[in-house]
Amino acid sequence: MTQTNPAPTSGVRPASDARLLPLIQGPADLKKLPIDQLPELAEEIRHAICDQVSKTGGHLAPNLGVVELTIALHYVFDFGHDRLLFDVGHQCYPHKLLTGRLGLLSKLRQRDGMSGFPEPRESHYDLFSVGHAGTAISTAVGMARGDTLNNQGDRKVVSLIGDASIVNGVAMEGLNNAGTLKRQFLVVLNDNGMSIAKPQGAMAQYFDRVRVNHDYGAFKKRAHDVLKRIPGGSALEELYHRAGEMMKAMITTGHMFEQFGLLCVGPLDGHDLPTLIDILTELRDFDRPVLLHLKTVKGKGFDFSTGDPSKFHSPSPFTVEGCRVEMKKSGRSFTTAYADALIDVMKRDEKVYAVTAAMPDGTGLNKVMPMFPDRSLDTGICESHAMDMCAGLAKTGIKPFFAVYSTFVQRAMDQVFQEITLQGLAVRICLDRAGFVGDDGAVHHGFMDISIFAPLPNLVMLAVSDEPNLKAGLEFMRQYDAGASVVRYPRDNVADPALFAEVPPYELGKAVFIARSGKAGDPVNGNGDGKPDLAILALGTEVYEAHKAMADLEKQGYDIALYDARFAKPVDIELIRGLIERGIPVLTVEDHSVRGGFGAIALETCNDRGIPTDLLYRHGMPERWVYQASRKAQLGEVGLDAAGIARRIRAVLDERSVVPAGRPTVAAH
Amino acid sequence: MTQTNPAPTSGVRPASDARLLPLIQGPADLKKLPIDQLPELAEEIRHAICDQVSKTGGHLAPNLGVVELTIALHYVFDFGHDRLLFDVGHQCYPHKLLTGRLGLLSKLRQRDGMSGFPEPRESHYDLFSVGHAGTAISTAVGMARGDTLNNQGDRKVVSLIGDASIVNGVAMEGLNNAGTLKRQFLVVLNDNGMSIAKPQGAMAQYFDRVRVNHDYGAFKKRAHDVLKRIPGGSALEELYHRAGEMMKAMITTGHMFEQFGLLCVGPLDGHDLPTLIDILTELRDFDRPVLLHLKTVKGKGFDFSTGDPSKFHSPSPFTVEGCRVEMKKSGRSFTTAYADALIDVMKRDEKVYAVTAAMPDGTGLNKVMPMFPDRSLDTGICESHAMDMCAGLAKTGIKPFFAVYSTFVQRAMDQVFQEITLQGLAVRICLDRAGFVGDDGAVHHGFMDISIFAPLPNLVMLAVSDEPNLKAGLEFMRQYDAGASVVRYPRDNVADPALFAEVPPYELGKAVFIARSGKAGDPVNGNGDGKPDLAILALGTEVYEAHKAMADLEKQGYDIALYDARFAKPVDIELIRGLIERGIPVLTVEDHSVRGGFGAIALETCNDRGIPTDLLYRHGMPERWVYQASRKAQLGEVGLDAAGIARRIRAVLDERSVVPAGRPTVAAH
Repeated sequence: MTQTNPAPTSGVRPASDARLLPLIQGPADLKKLPIDQLPELAEEIRHAICDQVSKTGGHLAPNLGVVELTIALHYVFDFGHDRLLFDVGHQCYPHKLLTGRLGLLSKLRQRDGMSGFPEPRESHYDLFSVGHAGTAISTAVGMARGDTLNNQGDRKVVSLIGDASIVNGVAMEGLNNAGTLKRQFLVVLNDNGMSIAKPQGAMAQYFDRVRVNHDYGAFKKRAHDVLKRIPGGSALEELYHRAGEMMKAMITTGHMFEQFGLLCVGPLDGHDLPTLIDILTELRDFDRPVLLHLKTVKGKGFDFSTGDPSKFHSPSPFTVEGCRVEMKKSGRSFTTAYADALIDVMKRDEKVYAVTAAMPDGTGLNKVMPMFPDRSLDTGICESHAMDMCAGLAKTGIKPFFAVYSTFVQRAMDQVFQEITLQGLAVRICLDRAGFVGDDGAVHHGFMDISIFAPLPNLVMLAVSDEPNLKAGLEFMRQYDAGASVVRYPRDNVADPALFAEVPPYELGKAVFIARSGKAGDPVNGNGDGKPDLAILALGTEVYEAHKAMADLEKQGYDIALYDARFAKPVDIELIRGLIERGIPVLTVEDHSVRGGFGAIALETCNDRGIPTDLLYRHGMPERWVYQASRKAQLGEVGLDAAGIARRIRAVLDERSVVPAGRPTVAAH
Repeated sequence: MTQTNPAPTSGVRPASDARLLPLIQGPADLKKLPIDQLPELAEEIRHAICDQVSKTGGHLAPNLGVVELTIALHYVFDFGHDRLLFDVGHQCYPHKLLTGRLGLLSKLRQRDGMSGFPEPRESHYDLFSVGHAGTAISTAVGMARGDTLNNQGDRKVVSLIGDASIVNGVAMEGLNNAGTLKRQFLVVLNDNGMSIAKPQGAMAQYFDRVRVNHDYGAFKKRAHDVLKRIPGGSALEELYHRAGEMMKAMITTGHMFEQFGLLCVGPLDGHDLPTLIDILTELRDFDRPVLLHLKTVKGKGFDFSTGDPSKFHSPSPFTVEGCRVEMKKSGRSFTTAYADALIDVMKRDEKVYAVTAAMPDGTGLNKVMPMFPDRSLDTGICESHAMDMCAGLAKTGIKPFFAVYSTFVQRAMDQVFQEITLQGLAVRICLDRAGFVGDDGAVHHGFMDISIFAPLPNLVMLAVSDEPNLKAGLEFMRQYDAGASVVRYPRDNVADPALFAEVPPYELGKAVFIARSGKAGDPVNGNGDGKPDLAILALGTEVYEAHKAMADLEKQGYDIALYDARFAKPVDIELIRGLIERGIPVLTVEDHSVRGGFGAIALETCNDRGIPTDLLYRHGMPERWVYQASRKAQLGEVGLDAAGIARRIRAVLDERSVVPAGRPTVAAH
C-alpha cells in the first residue's frame, strides 16, 4: 500500500514555468481569465502542489482531485462575501493558492508557514480551522441560518465534502438538518473513492456503483424522462420546476441522499471545467438545498502506479501513504512498532481483534489486516460506531484493540463512558499520535485524552516510552480484563537503541525506576543512597527527554532520579508518597495538557490522601493552541524537550534554594 | 404540549385483574401461550405499565408502543441465547415484565428497584445499560461479529430502534457498517413518530410519507412486481432469492436505508401480533442484514387527548411531557426558570438564538420556541450537529444558546474542541441536568462536563445556585463574546425563596461571599472579623446544601464562611489565596466528579501558582457509579447533602484539631 518515489505524469510542467498562477492574487484575478485558460491554470496549480508536497510532505491526492472544482467554485461564487466550508480541510491547497497565498506555499505545514488545513488566521477566505471529518455541512447550516437572520441571505453557502466523510455520523446529521432549510444551500460531494482510506461500509459500494454520465447532451435528452419519473406529491416535483434547464437534466432520482430532502444533481465529471462552471452558475441561484455529486479521479494528474522521481524535484525520498505524501524518515515509528507488537499479540491470542476507523496507514493496521482478515476491520471514518462495535465485541468475550488517533477518540468519548466503562467492558484503546503531532498542527494534537477519560471508573491509562515498553504495555492490556485500558504513544520514532532492550512486565499503577545521576540507585525502593535533589516522574516518551535533561543537570552537579510513570491512571501514589516523605521534590512531565493530565491526577491523588503537595510540580502543555511546526519544535516551544525540562528543574531547585552538591554554595564561604 | 392527568382508554383493565402476566416468569412461559392469548397478555402488560408509571413517573408512550413487538420478539427468538439490544432503552419495560421482573415493577426507577433502562445488573436478558440514543445497532454489530468469531454464529442478533434515534449519527454509522455483515442481523425500526420529541429533520418527513400497508394479501400480490422492479446486478436481487415468501412480498425497494446495504421489509403494523410472529419467524433464519420497518401508534392504548384520572389509580397528579410521565411536583424547576430567563434575554437581544437537540420539554425550550419561531430550533437527536450548527451561527455574529443535558453534551465534546474553542467562537452552552439526575440513574448523570471541557482554551464555565443567579449568569453569557461559555444547573427545583432576591452581576472568575456563622463578614475581602474555622467554596446548588450545613455547624460552635464559587473555570484564585494565606482551610463542594472537577481546577491553579494546598480540601462525587434513586438520596449517598457536607467539615476540622470556639477545649482545662 506504500510506494516510494512515485512521479507525476509526463504532462505536468515544472513550477518555474508557471505563467498564470503568479498573476492570481485573489479570486478577482481568477475571474479575469477566460474559461479556456482555466485548464492551463489547473495544471500550474497541480504542479505547484506536487512540487511542494514532494519537499515537505502533505496531502496530495485530495488536493489534486479538487483543482478544477476549486477553480470553478471561485470563478462562479464570490467567497469574499459567500461562504465556502471545507470538510476535513486537507483538500484546501488549491483554494489557498487562489486566495493570495502562493507565497506561503514554500513553507507548507511549517512553523509560521501555510497550514495544511483551512486556517482563519491566514485568510478571511478560510472560515473554520478544521481537520476532523464531517463538520462542514453542520457548520454551513449554522452559517446559512445566521446569514438569513442577519438579513444577509444573499450570501451563498457552499460546503465541500468527500465520499469518505459524508458517511460520517456528524455529516449525516448535518445533511438531515440541511434538508429542512428553505434557502440556497449547496453541498458538493467530491466522490473520489479514496478520501482517506477506502471508505468501509455499505454506502461505499453504492458510490462505486454510481457511474458518471459524461455526456451533457445525453443528460438533456433525459430531462423529460426524469420529470415523468418523479413521484407525484413529492417535494422533488416542486423543486424540479424551479430548476434551470441544465439542473433539470442532471437531477438524479433515487439518489441515496434524496431522502434527506436535498435535490440531488449528478454525478458529473469533477474535472470538466466548462460543465462545472455552467452547473455551478445555475446552482448558485437555486433557492433550496442541493447536493451536487461529482466524480473525481484519485490524485488526478499524478500517476501513483509508476515512479519517476526526477520530475518531482524532491530533495529527499518520500512515500505515498493513502492520500498523503510522507517524507521518508530514517528510523522506526511507534506506528510500525505498534503493528508488529499487535501482530505478535494476535498470534499468541486468538481472541484479539484489531480495529481502525479509516486510518489503516496511520495506525499500522495496513500491516496487520492482511495477516488477520477475519480478526480485523476498518470501519471507515466513524469513531463512534467503531468504539461501540468494540463494546459489542468485548461483550462476547473478544478482546478488541482499537487503534485510533488521540484527537479522533474525542469523537467517541461518550461511547467510552456509556457503552464501555459503565458496562465494565475490557475494550483496549490504543492512542496513536498522542501528544504533539507536528505539521498537522492544532487540529490534530492529542492533548486531552487523559483528562477526558480520567473521571471514568473501570478504566486505566498507560503511556509507553519506547518499543520494549509498547510491547510490554500491549501484553498488559491483553491480559487486563477488569475494564477498559488505554495506551498512548506519539507520532514519533521509537528510541533506537532503547534505554533497556528488555523491560519488566507492566504492573497496574506501578512506575519503574530508570536512572539516577549523582549517587546511584532508586531512593525510595530500597537500593538508593542519599537523597536526590529532585525526582522526575515522566510519562511516555518524555522519559527520554527527561533522561537527556538529567544528563545535563548531572554535569552541573545535580542529583536527579528518573522514573517512567507508565500509568497515568492510576498513578503510582506510593512512589510519590515515598519521594515526598523523604523531602524530595517531584516533577511530573507529560506530553499532554497540564490541566487534567497525569500530573493533575498525581496532584489530586496526593490531595485525596493528605500527602503534602508543596513538593509536587507539574510540567506539560500549557493552556493555549500550538500551531503547525515540527513535533520537535512544538515540544521545544512549550519546554517539553530536554532543554525545557532542564530549565524547569533548575527553576524549581532555584526556587527551593537547592545548590548542586558538585558546586560550592555561596553561603558556605 | 403538556397535559395534566390524562387517562387510559376505557378498554384497559385494572392491574389486579391480570390473569396471564403473573404466570410469565420468563420467555419460556410466554412461549407456552397460544398466539390467540397474546393480545390479552399485551393488554395486561399495557395496564401494568400505565398503572405503575402513574405512580412513579417514567417513559410511557415508548413502552406502550412496543408491547406487541416485544411479545412477538420473545415468542420467536430465544434471548437467553440470542441477542436483543435496545436503543435508548426507555422502551424496555415490556421486555422486563416478560423476563421475570414483574416483582420489581412496583419500585420502578427507585433505589434498589427496577431501572428505567436496560440494566445487566438486573438480568442477563439485558445486555447493555443504556440511555443515550443511537448505540444499539453498533453494539449489535460488535456482538454479531464477536459471536461469529466465537463459533456461535447461531446466536441471532436483533436491535430495536426508534425513528428519532435512527437518524442519529452514531446509528447511521452503525447501519452503514451493518450493511457489510454477511450473516443474520435484524434491525427493527419502531417508527412511532414521537420517540422523544417530533424528530426534526428532513428524514422525519420521509417517515411521515411512508404509510403502512396493513393488508398481507395485497403484499403477496405485489411480490412479482417487486421482483421485476429490482434493478439487475443489485445486491438486493441476490438477497431476494434467499427470502421466504412473506418477506419477498414485503420487501420495499427504494427504502431510504436500502443504500446502507440492508434488505428493507415493511412498513408493517407493529401491533398486529400474528403478522409480527410470522414475519419475525421468517427473518430469524435469514442470513443477511435486514431492516424491518414497523409503524406503531404513539402510546398505543392510552388516550393522550382526553383525561380521566380516576382510571389511572394515580396517588398524585402528574403531567405528560413528550413521551414521559412526570409526577407533578410542587415548586419551580431550573428548566422552567431557564426558559423564562432565556425569554427575557431573547426579548432584549435579537441576536440570541435558542437550540435544543430533541429535548424541548426537558430543557424548557417548548415555552421559548413558539415565542421566537425564527430564532429557535430543535435539531432532533443530534448533539454533534447541533453544536456545529451553533458554531456556524456564532461565526455569523449570532449568539446561540444551546440547551442540552450535561450527559448528552458528551456527544459533542469534539465539536466544542475543534469547531468552537479552536475558532474562539462565542457559543453559549447551557447544561441542564448537570449533577445527579435522580431516577434516570447512572446513564444520565451530568458528572463530567467540567472535566471534559477544562483543558480547552477560550472557554469559561459557570454554575448557578438559584434563579436569581441563573438570570445573572445568562446575562453574563449574553455579553461574553470572548469565547465559549458553559453554565450548569441541576435537575431540581430552584430554591424558594432564594437566599437573595437580587444578586450582583457575574464577573469573570469571581466568587461571591454568601454568609458567615460565628463572627460576621467576609474574612478575605475586608469586612470580616477574625478567622473562620473553615471556608466553603460551593459550586451551583451545593451553595444551598452548604448553607444548611453551615447552620448546623454554627450550632456546634464552629465559625464557617460560605462563598458561591460561581465559576468552575477560571476559579477565583485570589479568594482562595487570601483564605489559605490567612490559614483558613478551604473546602470546595460540587455536584460533579471530584476527579477533574471544580475542586481539581482550584487545586491545580494553586499548585501552578505556588499556593500551598495542605489547607485545600475537595468534596464531590466519588469515582464509582451511582444508580437510580431520588436525586436527594443520591446526594445523600455520596455526602453531597447538608448532612454529608457537615460530616466532611467536622472530619476536616477534627483532623486539623480545630475545636469550636463555643466549646471549651480539653487542653484548656
